[in-house]
Amino acid sequence: MTAPERLSASAIAAAVNAGETSAAAVMESTLARIAAYDAIQPQVWISRMAAEELLAQARIVDARVAAGERLPLAGVPYAAKDNIDVIGLETTAACPAFAYLPETSAMVITKLSAAGAICVGKTNLDQFATGLVGTRTPYGAPRNASNLAYVSGGSSSGSAVAVAAGLVAFALGTDTAGSGRVPAAFNHLVGLKPTRGRWSTRGLVPACRSLDCITVFTDSPADAQLLDSVIAGFDAADPFSRRPVDVPIRGGRIGIPRPDQRVFFGDLESEQLYNRALAVLGRIGELVEVDIAVLLEAAQLLYGGPWVAERTAAVGTLLRDNPEAIDPTVRSILEPGLTMSAVETWKGIYRLAALARHAEALWDSVDVLAFPTTGTIYRVAELSAEPVALNSNLGRYTNFVNLLDMAAIAVPAGARHNRTGFGITLIGPAHSDRGLIAMAQDYLAAAQLPEFPPLDTGDHMDTVKLAVVGAHLEGMPLHWQLSSRNARFVGAFTTAATYKLYAMAESVPPKPALVHSGDGGAAIALEVYEMGLAEFGSFVAEVPPPLAIGTVTLADGTSVKGFVAEPRAIVGARDITHLGGWRAYIGG
Amino acid sequence: MTAPERLSASAIAAAVNAGETSAAAVMESTLARIAAYDAIQPQVWISRMAAEELLAQARIVDARVAAGERLPLAGVPYAAKDNIDVIGLETTAACPAFAYLPETSAMVITKLSAAGAICVGKTNLDQFATGLVGTRTPYGAPRNASNLAYVSGGSSSGSAVAVAAGLVAFALGTDTAGSGRVPAAFNHLVGLKPTRGRWSTRGLVPACRSLDCITVFTDSPADAQLLDSVIAGFDAADPFSRRPVDVPIRGGRIGIPRPDQRVFFGDLESEQLYNRALAVLGRIGELVEVDIAVLLEAAQLLYGGPWVAERTAAVGTLLRDNPEAIDPTVRSILEPGLTMSAVETWKGIYRLAALARHAEALWDSVDVLAFPTTGTIYRVAELSAEPVALNSNLGRYTNFVNLLDMAAIAVPAGARHNRTGFGITLIGPAHSDRGLIAMAQDYLAAAQLPEFPPLDTGDHMDTVKLAVVGAHLEGMPLHWQLSSRNARFVGAFTTAATYKLYAMAESVPPKPALVHSGDGGAAIALEVYEMGLAEFGSFVAEVPPPLAIGTVTLADGTSVKGFVAEPRAIVGARDITHLGGWRAYIGG
Repeated sequence: MTAPERLSASAIAAAVNAGETSAAAVMESTLARIAAYDAIQPQVWISRMAAEELLAQARIVDARVAAGERLPLAGVPYAAKDNIDVIGLETTAACPAFAYLPETSAMVITKLSAAGAICVGKTNLDQFATGLVGTRTPYGAPRNASNLAYVSGGSSSGSAVAVAAGLVAFALGTDTAGSGRVPAAFNHLVGLKPTRGRWSTRGLVPACRSLDCITVFTDSPADAQLLDSVIAGFDAADPFSRRPVDVPIRGGRIGIPRPDQRVFFGDLESEQLYNRALAVLGRIGELVEVDIAVLLEAAQLLYGGPWVAERTAAVGTLLRDNPEAIDPTVRSILEPGLTMSAVETWKGIYRLAALARHAEALWDSVDVLAFPTTGTIYRVAELSAEPVALNSNLGRYTNFVNLLDMAAIAVPAGARHNRTGFGITLIGPAHSDRGLIAMAQDYLAAAQLPEFPPLDTGDHMDTVKLAVVGAHLEGMPLHWQLSSRNARFVGAFTTAATYKLYAMAESVPPKPALVHSGDGGAAIALEVYEMGLAEFGSFVAEVPPPLAIGTVTLADGTSVKGFVAEPRAIVGARDITHLGGWRAYIGG
Repeated sequence: MTAPERLSASAIAAAVNAGETSAAAVMESTLARIAAYDAIQPQVWISRMAAEELLAQARIVDARVAAGERLPLAGVPYAAKDNIDVIGLETTAACPAFAYLPETSAMVITKLSAAGAICVGKTNLDQFATGLVGTRTPYGAPRNASNLAYVSGGSSSGSAVAVAAGLVAFALGTDTAGSGRVPAAFNHLVGLKPTRGRWSTRGLVPACRSLDCITVFTDSPADAQLLDSVIAGFDAADPFSRRPVDVPIRGGRIGIPRPDQRVFFGDLESEQLYNRALAVLGRIGELVEVDIAVLLEAAQLLYGGPWVAERTAAVGTLLRDNPEAIDPTVRSILEPGLTMSAVETWKGIYRLAALARHAEALWDSVDVLAFPTTGTIYRVAELSAEPVALNSNLGRYTNFVNLLDMAAIAVPAGARHNRTGFGITLIGPAHSDRGLIAMAQDYLAAAQLPEFPPLDTGDHMDTVKLAVVGAHLEGMPLHWQLSSRNARFVGAFTTAATYKLYAMAESVPPKPALVHSGDGGAAIALEVYEMGLAEFGSFVAEVPPPLAIGTVTLADGTSVKGFVAEPRAIVGARDITHLGGWRAYIGG
């Protein structure tokens, strides 16, 4: 495969405005790309607009252009993280029990529509935007676009993958702890996290309402600037909105962490990539080592201080009334917020004010900071084993930014051998957004990064497909062993017509045995799931005798791993082959 | 009596700098005035510097001036509210159990010393600066300088009285809910409450740390401006400090509450005085009626929202470990802060942010607000009966100011017939301090207020002196009936040598009967207390037979009200006249 075809918002808009193509034609090809990627990662999306509706919107854009309007985002398809209200689609925040149908679109959506952009759908996320990984969702974890065994990063997981896979030209994310930067780094994207209040957050499900920013993932800093020019603006109806001002970056002093404060969690490759980025930065400015202890201390407040209770406040009564509706890891993070006191809250606010005063002094010695966006990346399977600690590692260089009222832009800085993206983040004081975008352009021009690695289309051994025929089918008693491993449903198929199915004697819960038969067999209904290697390994380890995991031939002649049985399985068992599948037996 | 001699900071400094007088001479007369007023209201002060120390400081100022320094506050005596650290004196915040000896002075004190001002002592306050009345203190409630039956206003009670009585040229207060403005109004003073963060709060015991301001009481706006020029400035070590900027007031549109929102709590006289002030304001600007509902709603948050927990946080472990050490009314305000949650706190912060956004819109239609500082004033006795509700009434026009990040200056606007001060407050957006001071000057020049009423020296019938001889003496079982009425100890005296004292039979607790005797009497020891008329009335109502309140002749021939007895009191009683007093009997 070659590098994915990425879309440029400005190029699309220019072509539509110039009449070189139409918004309708752009939308047709967008829909085709999305459909194709559905075979790989349908879980990028939580909901999508109907194709006819999207084409109708595209034709309206074409009509506006034909009438002489010059639209900065004419016909540009984009996606919105599913914690941002878009009229016509439910807002779920990745929690079905929380879902509601919004009466109006978020302010940013309204501005994008006016500029000619078209929202194709809502993307998956770490539930309530609480996470930096992408795995904390009941809609299936989006995987890294370059390597499906690895996390996409979060919480804006689906938005980053949608852009990285070339499905849309840009996607809106949000960012409280790093949710608009970490997935950018992991998927070789630009992620602009504007100054707090520069982009209206009206119509956003809050994470920490006092800190939240809406962000954008793009293929280039130029597109990020285009989006900022459309979206930035004071919104009198948003209490946290601020009048946008542009404070230039004053000089070329680039702050980097002191060597002993550069932590990569054992990931030597990320460390090498950061050193390579520093060499590039040294050509466009002067590198200045700074003590980042005060930033790291502020970062601890985000999950170790009263800001946790902002998240708790945001989910309303759900946490008390229906805690099982919340992802267990997210719940474990939100629950301490229920018992935190007002006095602790004020003490945390005072502590942050003191740290912010110390952090301000950084700007006396440097004009911008250039940190690794993350120190490393993890496999989805690793996250399942240690969901909180590894997530925290990923926030080391991002958590403090919103607390300390800074702006940031995440930019690609090369690929690991596993093809996942490594990135750096340029961080400046509030209102330095435009300066940061310009510096990101300078950096990328100087870096001359190699072409992005190809998209991972799933046809390699980092994941395994598994056929299930009995108690693991959707809705059956053991299906949770798949869903808890973030297994992706590939499809419902049948075996080749060479199998017999038995209902085993004395099996609890009732289970069948699929037995390859030399004669008299039939096509038996099954479901195929795909999961990571580690998850597959742990799944196999739990299969009890007389069942086993072997290889099953499908009707089309291909093979997948699947449930088979030891011979003793059919002792006293009942042959139910004539029913064609376990569901027919259990249901009857 | 004539109007009190008020001091001018600028006049004193000019005279000292010019060599027309010396700082030492100024201090000598200051000490004399303070000593004289001690006979009226010693409770203005919680602690004072030793006279020798003050004279030594004054001589240092004189030496600096002699050496050629030009000091903006050369030799100016001032007082500091006792929640501001001054090296050499304990900081109590009006709570003896909280007291500590500070290691350094507050930043404002340091600046004032450098400018040549001399701090003579620490003034009384509502405990932990929680109150607008002045009565919530174990050090005895300072009374209104113009009428001792009325509250001084608080929480900066002692500071306001010290300036009003001409003891010092200016005094530092603090202001969270109105503590720097309400006492200014009640005592015919100017009270500048600067923009939050304009004056460093380093070295201040917090009330609501996110809102607190240090303030100043002066005799004129010109002195307030002089003090601002000395004190304003960024303090990097104060997390809430802001760089001072001066944003001019843009025009002459003066916002006043809609008529239906002008509440004076039945005080027609205050309403008339406000109308008179509006007539003056109408000559210097254009009056614009505004809807103040959003301001009133924000005001409710200060004691009805999570900011209460800032007060709770400020007192540390004292509230849990030693609640009896805290004034009962203050305690009843702080205690709810212990159980307030973090989630409620954030919801309050969000609510304030929304209200602040609405309040901002006011500045589109007006350039400044001119509100009554308070709608009315209360007697000390009224506060004792209803300590929370009446205090809340006094905050109607002040509570919202700090929450909504506004600056304010309280200015005199005439006297009620009871001689207490009525005032208006000019309120502007953050950083309008200098504009407000200039407008206060314009207003006072236009208003041509009559001379301030004379100081109340206590020699009229608004208070009553009462002699006690038995169970009400200091340290005796019924003394609380005096202390709970804020009775002031006048002194220990004896009766004329014409009384007999009996220990009554079967009295619980043991009580004496003082009986005027035609022959064989003696001088009996007694203590004289002074209290408000209403308090006296309620005290008399509680005196059980056979005792009564009559008139007692003292050794010097003067008479005070005092305990006497019905004849039946001596039936079976023991004559203890030879002991000379009840304390000798009880002690023996």
